[in-house]
Amino acid sequence: MTNAIVLLSGGLDSTTALAWARKEKQWSCHTIAFDYGQRHRIELQAAAKVSHILGAVKHHEIKLDMRSIGGSALTDSIDVPKDHSDSDAIPITYVPARNLIFLSLAAALAEQVEATRIIIGANIVDYSGYPDCRPAFLNAFETTVNLGTKQGVEKSPMKIEAPLLDMTKEEIIALGLRLGVDYSMTHSCYDPSKDGRSCGHCDSCLFRQQGFFNLGKQDPLTYAS
Amino acid sequence: MTNAIVLLSGGLDSTTALAWARKEKQWSCHTIAFDYGQRHRIELQAAAKVSHILGAVKHHEIKLDMRSIGGSALTDSIDVPKDHSDSDAIPITYVPARNLIFLSLAAALAEQVEATRIIIGANIVDYSGYPDCRPAFLNAFETTVNLGTKQGVEKSPMKIEAPLLDMTKEEIIALGLRLGVDYSMTHSCYDPSKDGRSCGHCDSCLFRQQGFFNLGKQDPLTYAS
Repeated sequence: MTNAIVLLSGGLDSTTALAWARKEKQWSCHTIAFDYGQRHRIELQAAAKVSHILGAVKHHEIKLDMRSIGGSALTDSIDVPKDHSDSDAIPITYVPARNLIFLSLAAALAEQVEATRIIIGANIVDYSGYPDCRPAFLNAFETTVNLGTKQGVEKSPMKIEAPLLDMTKEEIIALGLRLGVDYSMTHSCYDPSKDGRSCGHCDSCLFRQQGFFNLGKQDPLTYAS
Repeated sequence: MTNAIVLLSGGLDSTTALAWARKEKQWSCHTIAFDYGQRHRIELQAAAKVSHILGAVKHHEIKLDMRSIGGSALTDSIDVPKDHSDSDAIPITYVPARNLIFLSLAAALAEQVEATRIIIGANIVDYSGYPDCRPAFLNAFETTVNLGTKQGVEKSPMKIEAPLLDMTKEEIIALGLRLGVDYSMTHSCYDPSKDGRSCGHCDSCLFRQQGFFNLGKQDPLTYAS
């Protein structure tokens, strides 16, 4: 039985990646989510729910105070940009070294539960903007983790799996729907209202809405505006 | 002016690495320490003191709950081995992926303060046992961090510096003494008593004592036994 760790934010991409690992690959999965001071902490509830419904062995929530490092609209008091106000540059919602940190913690958990796969929902929608979603980075990380861990050196090496890497948002949603994912339990918004509704205007909401629209499907979420 | 991040545990090696960066290189340094549920939390006080005395710009203490991952005598209720009871294998005090995680968080801080150097006190005493102290790992990490961060991709790449890598414990102590380090402010023990005294029998104490002995110098610490 293949044992896998799935980075699970509770969003559309990571939920689909978990469904792929569980239903398409039939892997035994531990899910890991991070409480890192993000303003959209509501995603943590979504992650726990998604993990349970998709039959993960265990959900691990790691508390990590990245506010003391700072530097992103996702954790600081900087405003989240709305309606694609940003240019082609790396967006202000970039959190310094986030996937490097998250993958490293996932590797630690992988050693503990003897998992040989680490699954991340990175995809082309992200990797234009975020360098830590790009294939070259993921490949280099795989090399590094196998040189720097007991598991990589002594036992079976770890493989970083990014099953959505070449997919557009609508292809990801189509895959998830085919695997029976109920997207009403996911959360994508970077800047939700206090009652938990998605803003409908941040990059994450816009990409999600565009994906459902292009596919001709209804997004089951209700938006604040 | 070169800006550096120094991984500072408050132990002998990282303190010497900081002294090297400050006094030999005259770099501007931010220090970073991790509160990761280690049983030897007293090292955090040593780190803060060392950072101040050696003139770091700022000391950053990052809280990270690794107990939820588990798997090491340093964080769990597993006994710390005494008097070199361990074999040549990777020791039970190995914390899964620790340096990978610590270096990743240091990279995030480096992006914030625009540092181009990350300094780690890894050395040959460690890297027989701990894969995450070996040169191949450190080189692979440097490649990875420069592919996966805004700083590496857009601006000046980061360099991982391990100035003690080829040194024995006595060479490290000799370097520190030459640079004026007061080793009474450092803490090395994995299993200190409640009043903060070092046990004198864990691997970390034994390597330290051996280092001072080989150099013909007095270790300024008092030991419990």
